[in-house]
Amino acid sequence: MKWALICGSSGDIGMQISKDLAEEGWSLYLHYTHNEQRINELVNQFNHKYPKQDFIPIQADFLDKNSVEKISNSIFSLDAVIFAQGTTYYALLSDFPTEKIDEILTIQLKTPVLLLQKLQKKLAKNKFGRVVFLSSIYGKTGSAMEVPYSSVKGAINTFVRAYSKEVASLGITVNAIAPGAVNTQMNSIFDDETLEKVKEEIPVGYLANVEEISYWVNVLLAEKASYMTGQTLFVNGGWLD
Amino acid sequence: MKWALICGSSGDIGMQISKDLAEEGWSLYLHYTHNEQRINELVNQFNHKYPKQDFIPIQADFLDKNSVEKISNSIFSLDAVIFAQGTTYYALLSDFPTEKIDEILTIQLKTPVLLLQKLQKKLAKNKFGRVVFLSSIYGKTGSAMEVPYSSVKGAINTFVRAYSKEVASLGITVNAIAPGAVNTQMNSIFDDETLEKVKEEIPVGYLANVEEISYWVNVLLAEKASYMTGQTLFVNGGWLD
Amino acid sequence: MKWALICGSSGDIGMQISKDLAEEGWSLYLHYTHNEQRINELVNQFNHKYPKQDFIPIQADFLDKNSVEKISNSIFSLDAVIFAQGTTYYALLSDFPTEKIDEILTIQLKTPVLLLQKLQKKLAKNKFGRVVFLSSIYGKTGSAMEVPYSSVKGAINTFVRAYSKEVASLGITVNAIAPGAVNTQMNSIFDDETLEKVKEEIPVGYLANVEEISYWVNVLLAEKASYMTGQTLFVNGGWLD
Amino acid sequence: MKWALICGSSGDIGMQISKDLAEEGWSLYLHYTHNEQRINELVNQFNHKYPKQDFIPIQADFLDKNSVEKISNSIFSLDAVIFAQGTTYYALLSDFPTEKIDEILTIQLKTPVLLLQKLQKKLAKNKFGRVVFLSSIYGKTGSAMEVPYSSVKGAINTFVRAYSKEVASLGITVNAIAPGAVNTQMNSIFDDETLEKVKEEIPVGYLANVEEISYWVNVLLAEKASYMTGQTLFVNGGWLD
Repeated sequence: MKWALICGSSGDIGMQISKDLAEEGWSLYLHYTHNEQRINELVNQFNHKYPKQDFIPIQADFLDKNSVEKISNSIFSLDAVIFAQGTTYYALLSDFPTEKIDEILTIQLKTPVLLLQKLQKKLAKNKFGRVVFLSSIYGKTGSAMEVPYSSVKGAINTFVRAYSKEVASLGITVNAIAPGAVNTQMNSIFDDETLEKVKEEIPVGYLANVEEISYWVNVLLAEKASYMTGQTLFVNGGWLD
Repeated sequence: MKWALICGSSGDIGMQISKDLAEEGWSLYLHYTHNEQRINELVNQFNHKYPKQDFIPIQADFLDKNSVEKISNSIFSLDAVIFAQGTTYYALLSDFPTEKIDEILTIQLKTPVLLLQKLQKKLAKNKFGRVVFLSSIYGKTGSAMEVPYSSVKGAINTFVRAYSKEVASLGITVNAIAPGAVNTQMNSIFDDETLEKVKEEIPVGYLANVEEISYWVNVLLAEKASYMTGQTLFVNGGWLD
Repeated sequence: MKWALICGSSGDIGMQISKDLAEEGWSLYLHYTHNEQRINELVNQFNHKYPKQDFIPIQADFLDKNSVEKISNSIFSLDAVIFAQGTTYYALLSDFPTEKIDEILTIQLKTPVLLLQKLQKKLAKNKFGRVVFLSSIYGKTGSAMEVPYSSVKGAINTFVRAYSKEVASLGITVNAIAPGAVNTQMNSIFDDETLEKVKEEIPVGYLANVEEISYWVNVLLAEKASYMTGQTLFVNGGWLD
Repeated sequence: MKWALICGSSGDIGMQISKDLAEEGWSLYLHYTHNEQRINELVNQFNHKYPKQDFIPIQADFLDKNSVEKISNSIFSLDAVIFAQGTTYYALLSDFPTEKIDEILTIQLKTPVLLLQKLQKKLAKNKFGRVVFLSSIYGKTGSAMEVPYSSVKGAINTFVRAYSKEVASLGITVNAIAPGAVNTQMNSIFDDETLEKVKEEIPVGYLANVEEISYWVNVLLAEKASYMTGQTLFVNGGWLD
């Protein structure tokens, strides 16, 4: 039985990853921050559909220092960690509230790093481990109005490269998936006209479905993906990059 | 029934790709230059194992101007093209024979480009097309003693990005796979000591098996990979890049 | 009269940048953390040599929240900011002390960002502004034993790209310089044998002199460099990248 | 006395480079294809202005096999080569005439490579050599309608990386400059509306002046630039990349 921890499993992308991995036979630790109900429904559904696998919800706030301890204490076997939690905030850097910068840094970079420190030994146990970060095309190209978000995604793209070298001999691969524009709640804040304009700029002509992002997590978790490590996969429909 | 053309299917990587795609249910055009016997054996084996699929050998020399016509005339239905043909030559640039530079340019860049011009309409027919180039990590980092090879792989990494924009609206994706050191005939020219040294430099500690490269062709040919285009996937065990 | 703020001006690279800019006619704000004596000597030397320019030392600890206020309050005219402060720490990520991770993030990313928020208006005043970060080749390739350092340099490489888009219309360019191995105090911790090995790996065959790094700050501060923004310049003697 | 060969010195960018290098005290070999008059005027002007330097026009057609021999035979001392020759052609790849693909490959990649083979020994003579290619942002991002041009610029970006490793120990650096949109004859084929749209997309808000591109050739030719090699400098006003 293989076990994966999905951080941010109640988000649109995190939920799709959970569904796809459950279908592939994984048992899951489903981390969430607030959406207890959404996760409970998901767990019920999974328990019914995949009775031989286990599904364990873990509540923790990545802004809370104790979250690292809380999560790592809830975990026994572990073969894969997917970091799909995250948030952004739109403002010019000159107007960006300091606490929002702190939040982005802590949720998307610092807490994941501290968590990996705790989980590394468990991931290394069977000489097969997988770490996957959801990054963003903006981690490469940078985006105005989202400078701290872009910077932290840039940090992650280099983190996977650096950390992968430390754990390669342990059988652990470390990679990131960098989507372009995805059809999620996060992008629903934009009005139709704005979204139409974005679509016109995207060579394939549409925003990614969450299944088209989640697919790459499956791909990276496979046994045969052992030779890819330290990479960021750009899944952007030809956009920007 | 889906059809793929595999250029260079008698090489170590091309042969593994052929096997993996045959197993996935594809019918194949198996291009080769010299190894008629190896391809005939492969076709016999495939015909036996996958009686409902078709396997058509195509002989053509990419150095011959008529090869483009010859190949495109042999092809009816087509959903995917994989360029796995190729060769290299080791010398300092100052000593590199002009005809070897020409060969590398023609076989790996010019003929594939001319061939795609002919095949585009067929690839576009079902609003689902896939083009995959076997590139190399050296296309990014560059290698001494293999300057023309590195340059042409660099050309390919940009070609996929540029061409993908022209055909995205036709449902065709265009990507490259850039392996590091692979356990093939091509690398068997190095003595054991040299190979040991290379292994020590590779974070995962071994040369890729051809299956670990071929895997990524499968991944890119899937329906769900539609949102990835214009990319080069580095499959290098953490080496060099 | 043009004014530059050099953060970390008492370090080996920061000091060379100070000397080169002073010689080019700039007045300088010389930020330092501890080395009061080294800075005072430098200021005396500059005052003697360039009597028409001004040289103002600013003490501030980037780990202290008040440093942003303290520095920005000391600054009137400002045309360029160079971030040359920094530190690293060697350990496997699994053993990396949390407070060292925090230090690296705060000194090299968070404080510079908060400082730029305060200084942007001053930089924009004359429709000519320059921001230059000292990054590292490791921000691209990642280094084992220096995962947090690599990550934060990766963050900076994307920061310059993202932030440059917000301030391009104000006449401010934002770039980074990413050295390879430099002949500084920081690398003097390695023994001769280790350094010899590194030199063998570097195509040009030697560690960069600080003048060869400082040169690129001069280059980027010139009027004619206005069209380059959002870039990271790798100055690595052909090493790694 | 330092000598530079400028290939394509009658083009807008090539001419500006010639002017800037002449002013810096270089003697020049001024290569051109057709514009004999333009070059003769330039030589007259230079002879008048810089009587102690030499200016030697060299006519050669990069499409002609003998051009390599012709140029290399005209050259005695040599410290720097700048490849600013070039041309493009706009068409969808599916409609691209084969001879135009050949032209782009030959003029921008093959002939320069063959020429460098001949010139390497001369460049290495004083343990100080410089090779600079004018590449393009499209060599990284790829452009629809200019797929062969993009590909060949991609080849060049990797060529500089690979070749730089072979000649680093000879004191020769090899780099490329990749402009975004430049205010040249080449772009004058676009109507005002198209150019306005491009300007809106460029963060700095205008097309580069040739001086802003030529500047980087000067920068790379300096003694102090010895530690930068194998790089491509993007000078794009924040556009695309």
